Amino acid sequence: MDDLPESDAFGAMCRDYHEGGDAFEVIERDDGFVECPAGPELYFSTPDEWSALGHAAVEWAEGHVLDVGCGPGRHALALQERGHDVTGIDLSPGAIGVARDRGVEDVQRYDVADAADLDGLFDSAVLLGNNFGLVGSAERAPEVLGSLAEATTDAATLIASSLDPLDTDDPAHLNYHERNRDRDRLPGRIRIRTRYRQYIGEWHDYLHAAPETMRDLVEETRWTVDAVEREGPRYVAKLHKA
Amino acid sequence: MDDLPESDAFGAMCRDYHEGGDAFEVIERDDGFVECPAGPELYFSTPDEWSALGHAAVEWAEGHVLDVGCGPGRHALALQERGHDVTGIDLSPGAIGVARDRGVEDVQRYDVADAADLDGLFDSAVLLGNNFGLVGSAERAPEVLGSLAEATTDAATLIASSLDPLDTDDPAHLNYHERNRDRDRLPGRIRIRTRYRQYIGEWHDYLHAAPETMRDLVEETRWTVDAVEREGPRYVAKLHKA
Repeated sequence: MDDLPESDAFGAMCRDYHEGGDAFEVIERDDGFVECPAGPELYFSTPDEWSALGHAAVEWAEGHVLDVGCGPGRHALALQERGHDVTGIDLSPGAIGVARDRGVEDVQRYDVADAADLDGLFDSAVLLGNNFGLVGSAERAPEVLGSLAEATTDAATLIASSLDPLDTDDPAHLNYHERNRDRDRLPGRIRIRTRYRQYIGEWHDYLHAAPETMRDLVEETRWTVDAVEREGPRYVAKLHKA
Repeated sequence: MDDLPESDAFGAMCRDYHEGGDAFEVIERDDGFVECPAGPELYFSTPDEWSALGHAAVEWAEGHVLDVGCGPGRHALALQERGHDVTGIDLSPGAIGVARDRGVEDVQRYDVADAADLDGLFDSAVLLGNNFGLVGSAERAPEVLGSLAEATTDAATLIASSLDPLDTDDPAHLNYHERNRDRDRLPGRIRIRTRYRQYIGEWHDYLHAAPETMRDLVEETRWTVDAVEREGPRYVAKLHKA
């Protein structure tokens, strides 16, 4: 049963859900705040369950697509169905195994910061399911976005979703933003880990960025924001390479 | 919004669910294992959603009932509907507030070990929803069961539910049992705390005891097990005072 490292909480959850078991996801933030978000129901959702944002994201994609943080492959599968070649990358061995088992044709274990080392140039890169957050922080964003610029063609499209962290009145979140500002960090930078049963993921930084923050962050990169579709706090942005 | 102590994770969950919000419960064990059990859906369930065990438990109750660890009151309300006077006790301020708001007529903040200090003698005491676990450990059980003996009439009935911890093939649980045995503890003694959003409950011992373990534990008390109804790992036992 247990070929996954204890740190692959995300992958163990994906594996168990994929195998028909109960599964859940606990996200723990470094201030002690915990959540049980939609979890596997979201990661395994199909396009008929998506809002307009998800549909816009896959419609914007062109050619050979790099799906960054593909998880069990909901976007990769939808893109394949639309006729795209897709390469998925993820750090979770469990999620990679599930994505392959579900039919994602090319899935590799890669950090987004190393995307430039992948073979071939992609026509699009997608950071969906809030995965613009994988830039981690203002400091790390240029490296990640630069890597994606190197991994893609000159006419490439980048499609990135995030949520506006300031679109909340929850004191637990507002206090966390304030703590971040006191440390000269962007308010929506969260340090989190995934927990699932005995599995405990590694702490990592994830960035929720309002559209204007995304525009600021890409300014010093080769990317430019062309369009934003928004639904409440969530949005998806289309960027092109300048 | 926040009149509850940060340690009242259980009560905050009950309050938010009662007020119509999303709510969930994370149970964290001291080995790092986490679960998201049924949580509020279970604590707020109504008798039409219960299995035969829950019905047996409320049918066995007699006269004025002490509901130990009443939470938001699902058993207390069902007992009131059946014509019983009920006194609920719980340690969670949030749960107590919700139980009162839902119509439980007498709810007090009391530790089960202090039940003997309550006014009046009860005809029955109930430890439902696995709340036999509130005895905590083999060492603490005589004090808790003795307190319930003092709080009740000579002809009193005690109704207690638990689950057989050995009825599992889950390695995460089997390993925990082994760790307990190595420390001369009953295998089903778990040290846990509840987490919900920014709320973190206090660590406490909770005991899952097989029926034969329950029989052993009550041997040195005034209680005797008369009947056990079992469904899979779960069971409810009826005890009388010898």
